[in-house]
Amino acid sequence: MWQDIFAAIDEQYEKMVETRRYLHQYPEVSFYEEKTSRFITDTYERLGIPYESHVGGNGVIATLEGGKPGRTVALRADFDALPIQEENTVSYASKNDGAMHACGHDGHTASLLGLAEALLPFQKELPGTVVFLHQHAEEYAPGGAKPIVESGALSHVDAVFGTHLWVNAPTGVIQTAKGPFMAGADRFEITIQGKGGHGAQPHQTKDAIVIASQLVTSLQQVVSRRIDPLKTAVVTVGTFEAGQTFNIIADSAKLTGTVRTFDPEVQTLIIDEMEKIIKGTCTGHDAEYDFLYEKGYPPVENHPEEAELILKDAHHADPSLRTEEIEPVMAGEDFAYYLLEKPGTFYFTGAQIPDHYYPHHHPKFDFDEKALPHAAKTLLQAFISYQEKHMNS
Amino acid sequence: MWQDIFAAIDEQYEKMVETRRYLHQYPEVSFYEEKTSRFITDTYERLGIPYESHVGGNGVIATLEGGKPGRTVALRADFDALPIQEENTVSYASKNDGAMHACGHDGHTASLLGLAEALLPFQKELPGTVVFLHQHAEEYAPGGAKPIVESGALSHVDAVFGTHLWVNAPTGVIQTAKGPFMAGADRFEITIQGKGGHGAQPHQTKDAIVIASQLVTSLQQVVSRRIDPLKTAVVTVGTFEAGQTFNIIADSAKLTGTVRTFDPEVQTLIIDEMEKIIKGTCTGHDAEYDFLYEKGYPPVENHPEEAELILKDAHHADPSLRTEEIEPVMAGEDFAYYLLEKPGTFYFTGAQIPDHYYPHHHPKFDFDEKALPHAAKTLLQAFISYQEKHMNS
Amino acid sequence: MWQDIFAAIDEQYEKMVETRRYLHQYPEVSFYEEKTSRFITDTYERLGIPYESHVGGNGVIATLEGGKPGRTVALRADFDALPIQEENTVSYASKNDGAMHACGHDGHTASLLGLAEALLPFQKELPGTVVFLHQHAEEYAPGGAKPIVESGALSHVDAVFGTHLWVNAPTGVIQTAKGPFMAGADRFEITIQGKGGHGAQPHQTKDAIVIASQLVTSLQQVVSRRIDPLKTAVVTVGTFEAGQTFNIIADSAKLTGTVRTFDPEVQTLIIDEMEKIIKGTCTGHDAEYDFLYEKGYPPVENHPEEAELILKDAHHADPSLRTEEIEPVMAGEDFAYYLLEKPGTFYFTGAQIPDHYYPHHHPKFDFDEKALPHAAKTLLQAFISYQEKHMNS
Amino acid sequence: MWQDIFAAIDEQYEKMVETRRYLHQYPEVSFYEEKTSRFITDTYERLGIPYESHVGGNGVIATLEGGKPGRTVALRADFDALPIQEENTVSYASKNDGAMHACGHDGHTASLLGLAEALLPFQKELPGTVVFLHQHAEEYAPGGAKPIVESGALSHVDAVFGTHLWVNAPTGVIQTAKGPFMAGADRFEITIQGKGGHGAQPHQTKDAIVIASQLVTSLQQVVSRRIDPLKTAVVTVGTFEAGQTFNIIADSAKLTGTVRTFDPEVQTLIIDEMEKIIKGTCTGHDAEYDFLYEKGYPPVENHPEEAELILKDAHHADPSLRTEEIEPVMAGEDFAYYLLEKPGTFYFTGAQIPDHYYPHHHPKFDFDEKALPHAAKTLLQAFISYQEKHMNS
Repeated sequence: MWQDIFAAIDEQYEKMVETRRYLHQYPEVSFYEEKTSRFITDTYERLGIPYESHVGGNGVIATLEGGKPGRTVALRADFDALPIQEENTVSYASKNDGAMHACGHDGHTASLLGLAEALLPFQKELPGTVVFLHQHAEEYAPGGAKPIVESGALSHVDAVFGTHLWVNAPTGVIQTAKGPFMAGADRFEITIQGKGGHGAQPHQTKDAIVIASQLVTSLQQVVSRRIDPLKTAVVTVGTFEAGQTFNIIADSAKLTGTVRTFDPEVQTLIIDEMEKIIKGTCTGHDAEYDFLYEKGYPPVENHPEEAELILKDAHHADPSLRTEEIEPVMAGEDFAYYLLEKPGTFYFTGAQIPDHYYPHHHPKFDFDEKALPHAAKTLLQAFISYQEKHMNS
Repeated sequence: MWQDIFAAIDEQYEKMVETRRYLHQYPEVSFYEEKTSRFITDTYERLGIPYESHVGGNGVIATLEGGKPGRTVALRADFDALPIQEENTVSYASKNDGAMHACGHDGHTASLLGLAEALLPFQKELPGTVVFLHQHAEEYAPGGAKPIVESGALSHVDAVFGTHLWVNAPTGVIQTAKGPFMAGADRFEITIQGKGGHGAQPHQTKDAIVIASQLVTSLQQVVSRRIDPLKTAVVTVGTFEAGQTFNIIADSAKLTGTVRTFDPEVQTLIIDEMEKIIKGTCTGHDAEYDFLYEKGYPPVENHPEEAELILKDAHHADPSLRTEEIEPVMAGEDFAYYLLEKPGTFYFTGAQIPDHYYPHHHPKFDFDEKALPHAAKTLLQAFISYQEKHMNS
Repeated sequence: MWQDIFAAIDEQYEKMVETRRYLHQYPEVSFYEEKTSRFITDTYERLGIPYESHVGGNGVIATLEGGKPGRTVALRADFDALPIQEENTVSYASKNDGAMHACGHDGHTASLLGLAEALLPFQKELPGTVVFLHQHAEEYAPGGAKPIVESGALSHVDAVFGTHLWVNAPTGVIQTAKGPFMAGADRFEITIQGKGGHGAQPHQTKDAIVIASQLVTSLQQVVSRRIDPLKTAVVTVGTFEAGQTFNIIADSAKLTGTVRTFDPEVQTLIIDEMEKIIKGTCTGHDAEYDFLYEKGYPPVENHPEEAELILKDAHHADPSLRTEEIEPVMAGEDFAYYLLEKPGTFYFTGAQIPDHYYPHHHPKFDFDEKALPHAAKTLLQAFISYQEKHMNS
Repeated sequence: MWQDIFAAIDEQYEKMVETRRYLHQYPEVSFYEEKTSRFITDTYERLGIPYESHVGGNGVIATLEGGKPGRTVALRADFDALPIQEENTVSYASKNDGAMHACGHDGHTASLLGLAEALLPFQKELPGTVVFLHQHAEEYAPGGAKPIVESGALSHVDAVFGTHLWVNAPTGVIQTAKGPFMAGADRFEITIQGKGGHGAQPHQTKDAIVIASQLVTSLQQVVSRRIDPLKTAVVTVGTFEAGQTFNIIADSAKLTGTVRTFDPEVQTLIIDEMEKIIKGTCTGHDAEYDFLYEKGYPPVENHPEEAELILKDAHHADPSLRTEEIEPVMAGEDFAYYLLEKPGTFYFTGAQIPDHYYPHHHPKFDFDEKALPHAAKTLLQAFISYQEKHMNS
């Protein structure tokens, strides 16, 4: 039977591409994914698969109960986009100004919907239950996973699997790790309050742009000098906004950014050192500051047994696939919250376009659509492997 | 007669305050002053003084021909506002979001209109001609003065005087200089093109915020190390914009700013040194840049004889006034263009509110309205002194 | 028999302390260790153990051939000091101005000499041969290990073991790793050539101190932004020298420093990025530079089987000892060269003084002398374990 | 008679060159000028002109009483050298390692001694008294002028003149100003106390080189942002010393430098802002600091009447000379102390070598020896003009 389903997934390929491209044209940023959410519920409505909408926000959970006994396994796809202006000129480029599926969540959604449609005819023979977990707001903490978990909607689930289309790996490669897999991701916001004034009279002001620029420069030392070189950490300032016009000295500057770590002690040290540097910089300029630090997603820590299922069995889903056990990556994921509650594993589905490599979150990001069925098939394979492992338990 | 007119100006005080407060509530930024321009023409319409509108843009020139022979003297008031969000909570605070009369041009306009109304009844006895020169777009180069001059509208004018309400001097003080009085003011724009990417993968990017921050820090050296300490120069970065969201590394950053000098050699040196620093900073990060430098207003160089008239006679306009010859200031003014064409002088009318000092262009800027008639009277006095001086010539 | 020898080592304790304190008072910096070298040969002279001096420089190799068959195992101790002014006030503080045993090599030497003396009476019963390898110049690349290896003096040796007294671990703890254990350590030298001049006329100069200061600041980005956060790297500027007197602008500045990595690709990337930043900084100031990068010791990569011997057996040497398998450390060691040629392992012998923790290379560095016999015993134990393992092979 | 003396000075030319070149070869830094001082007293001994040695330190004052009535005028030449390693390869290059006459004081001394020798035969006809004031330690505050003044040795003097050979002006040009002529010159010393350690373990240290580098960068803002652009100020860090060896993180760094101002308010502001920036930088790194600020020489403020004598009469000394009234310069001079006590003026004697321009204090500094008699003659002319002016008073 499974081979029939895998074949059915392959038949969904064009549909997946179509869905993905549709979603790509109408991206909605985190927490504002109303239309995308409705697109998903419309699909389940059409398929006749029961679902719940507005789970923990814009989340959608559809449930396909198999005709045979077995465990309940959730397969997750996120569906929010990023506040990036797309720079690709493809026919399916974003039509929503300032928003873009620059991370591949459009593909995740297309894969999972395609899987649902492919599975449906086999419902009776299916052991256990498949939960199609469509999550909103992965890109922006506090994210969608946490409220979905807190809503209790997954309380009956035995395990959770999820994948990310990944342009850092070639198409055909499946990557994961047993244990720490993705970093903890925090958000910070620094507001420098100097004193504005006429651009020609700096001595009557406290130039917030100079202060904040020096701060950005000094913050480099957190990683270069203050963290044990054997520990892993990233401190990124992602936005810098200051000033109203060219000939007025800016009275304030606002920085936002992200910190990535795998270790709570390093996280704490970074917060302390950032505060120290911010304070020192402002003291030196007689300026005020606000430092807001929001601890974000915890690290994604895969459950080794479930990770082993991926590594061992993924190629059963498609003989062209090859698995790799990799070092953890610095990116964060709120899939972490599922793994704090339930066994499971997150993994990458290689999707690099050979001559068009732009990293995730880049305005020219795009992925290889041939990977769409890979994602669908490996999620199904995870379901199968998990059922088989627990058949007699 | 003159004392009667000075008294008539004093009677205009409440009207001037009213006009000023009305304009303060409805500020319009440079080149977008349609309603303000109409407000001015409406006033001359009401007074029955002939005027020309849309001079060199939104400029308005009204002309009051005296009944006696004499010279033609233009008195100038500018009327544009700044793109600043007002932070004052006064009853007459700006009602236009993001725009503010943070430099006092509302007051200039109110003074000149008040002067026109006060003068009107004395038209017959007036020697020569008063040209009420209402100029748009002083705050943003290329400014309004240049196109007004180029329009030829001042070709028949013999001299030009103008004043700026000035919170750096106490009310009652009139300041000017014979010779260089205000700095040349240029505008620059620097775009740093790095390479964006995921906030957790800095090594795959060229972080434009780090590059631009370092650039701002390095640009301090232009003034601190590269200009003769005996020369005067200011390099201000007024805006810094980069990044879309906290967890994406910015691919580009945009800085705008202003340079102030009194000396073309220093100006040239600054442009060269800025280019050198920008290039070096980008070379060190393998990034690209665009450096746009727009030479703006030339320095305001007062004509000594006309400046002497102000210094010598201003107190005739009002015995409470006191004049001071001061060092030049770093602020720029497109009044400079008038002085390149015609004799004349620009001066400051002290307007500091004792317990509310915020520099020009500050979101809490405000000036002492008692200075409104001072501005009007001293402009008239300049007219008188000029006529008297040239009576027999 | 081994227990008798371990007891004999314990009896050497006071002698070891005496030797260590003597050496501590007369430290000699790398490549200048003539007297220390002579002290060692004098000791072997006195003991009647044959030795070779001036091996690869100031190195000394003594050989104790056992009466029974077995393998030849070298046990290494280094004996050079650092160019640091000691700040301890202990009775045995350095008497050589500007030189200090701030890393514990005095202790290494004392331990190995004590071991030799303790072993001597048991020579006949000893299986195989002990090679006492006293190495000069560990602290300063190209170091002493390389010329010793190149001299061929170790060609007949089967395995090499060495230890470092380590104040980052408590006394009684033995630490090592199977595989990468210590980092590759390179040295660099940057000379900035600006243009000097009178301290009051910066515009006629290119201020080398400002240029080099900015460079140090920018170099922080190599680690913070340009290296994969999952890779390990350190870039340290250790010295900064510039200027002759306070009122002259420095024409040049000289920086020296070290780079630490475990991975040749990271090493190459760092060299490239450093060059790029240096070049960019100098371009921005129209200055010249010299960048000298000396690849130093390769990473210390322990041979897993020999490391296993330490981890498994060290406590046989003394029941108070406890072993730990640790993460690699960033410090470098030219012991690396021995391990490129021969099987063996390097390990740490905990020696922290509870209330006097100062890191290695600190002017107040000191170690717990109770660890001296631990070092001697564990080196002997490594010899024993190695002999036993190879008894029948 | 005067023309005879001017001719006699010209005849001293070769002697002056010889003296100058001798002194140039044996420079002695400030306060250590014993041999130079003895060279001067030996000369007066030989000439038979009475002198006093060890005036206020190594100072020498010789007195030539004229045969006719008149005023007592001191002519000053300083004779200390700088701690600079000469980079010229001329035959008369410095033979004292690390010391150099890089400012021209060798020439000042040679000129004044030549003048003394030329004047001697005319003693009887000389009106008034010439005081040959040979001052030590001009280059290093507190300098030699202050103790000489305090010694009372000038109490009987009516006026003081002095000149500086000046490579920023062509030979033949005499420059001075009526009023402020040279800047106030202060000295500062900043010690940063971080925490040293192993070059591979930055997180256990507080890297003094990184801290001090950032400080140097931030100090640029004192001039670029915190001083009124219309005021004049220089902040120069002249030396930066830190670290012992390349692989040890420096525990402390020492900076020394100079501040130049013409205005006590600006001086005070700079001290405050420097302290603020130092404190903020150290706060941000949890480091300690020492900030020592020594107010040095006050500004040189020429007495207008005496300056007028130079400007008006210098060409009488030699028709090839031309005078210029110039803007003040940023360099400092302890000649200031004489002018606080007595009327007088300091001026520059142009001495630029056409194809070898290196600023004062540069290792390749040299001056045009043709200017030696210019200095001698203009000093004499100052004496003459002063006597003539006061002949009848």
